[in-house]
Amino acid sequence: MKEKATSFDIAYQAGVSQSTVSRALRNSPLVNAATREKIQAIAKELNYKVDKNASNLRSQQSDTIALLLFEDPTNDDSAINPFFLSMLGSITRACAQKGYDLLVSFQQASNDWHADFEDSNKADGLILLGYGDFVDFEEKLVQLTEQGTHFVRWGAEVENLPLVSIGCDNFQGGKEITEHVIAQGYNKLAFLGSASSHAPEFFERYKGHCQALTEANLAVIDSMQINALYTEDAGYKAACKLIESKQEFDAICAASDLIAIGAMRALQEHGISIPEQVAVVGFDDIAIASFTFPPLTTVKQDTKLAGELLVDSLLDLIAGESTKTTQIKPELVIRKSCGS
Amino acid sequence: MKEKATSFDIAYQAGVSQSTVSRALRNSPLVNAATREKIQAIAKELNYKVDKNASNLRSQQSDTIALLLFEDPTNDDSAINPFFLSMLGSITRACAQKGYDLLVSFQQASNDWHADFEDSNKADGLILLGYGDFVDFEEKLVQLTEQGTHFVRWGAEVENLPLVSIGCDNFQGGKEITEHVIAQGYNKLAFLGSASSHAPEFFERYKGHCQALTEANLAVIDSMQINALYTEDAGYKAACKLIESKQEFDAICAASDLIAIGAMRALQEHGISIPEQVAVVGFDDIAIASFTFPPLTTVKQDTKLAGELLVDSLLDLIAGESTKTTQIKPELVIRKSCGS
Repeated sequence: MKEKATSFDIAYQAGVSQSTVSRALRNSPLVNAATREKIQAIAKELNYKVDKNASNLRSQQSDTIALLLFEDPTNDDSAINPFFLSMLGSITRACAQKGYDLLVSFQQASNDWHADFEDSNKADGLILLGYGDFVDFEEKLVQLTEQGTHFVRWGAEVENLPLVSIGCDNFQGGKEITEHVIAQGYNKLAFLGSASSHAPEFFERYKGHCQALTEANLAVIDSMQINALYTEDAGYKAACKLIESKQEFDAICAASDLIAIGAMRALQEHGISIPEQVAVVGFDDIAIASFTFPPLTTVKQDTKLAGELLVDSLLDLIAGESTKTTQIKPELVIRKSCGS
Repeated sequence: MKEKATSFDIAYQAGVSQSTVSRALRNSPLVNAATREKIQAIAKELNYKVDKNASNLRSQQSDTIALLLFEDPTNDDSAINPFFLSMLGSITRACAQKGYDLLVSFQQASNDWHADFEDSNKADGLILLGYGDFVDFEEKLVQLTEQGTHFVRWGAEVENLPLVSIGCDNFQGGKEITEHVIAQGYNKLAFLGSASSHAPEFFERYKGHCQALTEANLAVIDSMQINALYTEDAGYKAACKLIESKQEFDAICAASDLIAIGAMRALQEHGISIPEQVAVVGFDDIAIASFTFPPLTTVKQDTKLAGELLVDSLLDLIAGESTKTTQIKPELVIRKSCGS
């Protein structure tokens, strides 16, 4: 086997400096077109491959985006929540379309992740994706900003922090689906899902839900909101609790599809028919939602668009351009579980 | 803000060389424990962060595994096939459990991927995951082996190539589910799925299907095998073709769950009841399979175990240990779509 060609070999053959070789191979405009082509032709002939780490040290460009996935600390199961799995897929795809690799790194909210990427050149920028509680993250987000790290977040806006986030208009989604349920003639609505600033997306959906109740002259009854976080099992348990509370209800608005699917299971085990006796609606439109029995009416969060917006916004920041927080319009998906 | 501490600052304070600092920070056994602890304490005090690219150049360890995802060239849709999405999730999770980041890189089968990672230090090893056609990959796989790249593949074994692969025993899975369908009293079985070496997993499932037919003294009829690749839509079209062929059939064995779900849609549109008139079974056990109507009998490929085996095998190779090709045992998942 021949010895590997080095940038020195190319520089020697082209009669230029090694740094010119390096710039030419990165298509830098600092090298004129003729020289660039000459150098690239020689590199090709010598079958020269750039050592990406060495090259990154010089250009500070890794052509890689890092995705920090934050765990649901309450989740014992090792499966990734289907909504975030779908986001992972769409972000991967959106990166590929822009010629970037995606570095996926699981994180705990308590980790030192805000410092880990500070001095490393593993990625040109970060996407933060995960379960709710950005309240506790605030200090770390401020530090990321101060150290000049390029990053965008999926999720709710953080008040008083000028950070770029892509999220869904959760308030509007929660309001629209509740209005739809009321329009079908249901008027004793329960809400399954946590309603606190530690689950900001769920909280917004609940606020929208309450707004719709109020506008329809229906009372907001605290005991009709039952906490549930993330899993199908949490939805099942919350629905059992609702049934056991002996409160009258004729509809369940769930804060997510998984919670709705768990609630459907609980209702069916108790011999309660959907949607004849109780309507059930969800939020997310995960792949399973159109296959439940009856198929689940829900609010679609467009994960394909979300992935593209996250990647595009981050690339704008990396390029030094301005970009802004965007809320994706939620879209009502009407199926059979709400009696339509 | 203070200037960033460098490894030189640490070396100066500790009274050692910079390379000793570098080794100590990587926990190298070449530095004795006392010195290592002293250096690590100073680094902590100075809030020193290793530049990962610079560090990797020295240690040749990126603590990153690269996942090369190969596209289905026939897929216009931008969504990732649910089986591979599930694999992506389980590999991500398995990497995290071992303290590795995962670099996800979409590839075209025709790309120069075998050379791209040759001289780069972006990852310590590769996992190859994707749609079928490793026949055309053979030359590239040989080159990866020759250049000493550590890699493992998901999928069927490649004859005459001593490569490590993790896969499912597709033949056995195809045989068992066909035997189960026959045991329910069905005897005019069609197979929807391509049967050629360009889709080796499907081909193995078909061979197992034929073996079960033969052992049950049922004829293998070529026209009862209809090509379909990967998508729900392909399954729908193949089932329509089968119906239009006017051949008698009372069961459909599909090469994947998505194909089965497409076939169920075609049968229902033609007013054919499942499983009373025609049984339908799939392969994979994707999340949707338990939510179809009726729920789909299928063969589970354990993606959680698959992700763990892929990562463990690759880490063995990286550590210079031996490892071997493993076939995961397929598991029959019996639901209602086959009349059980």
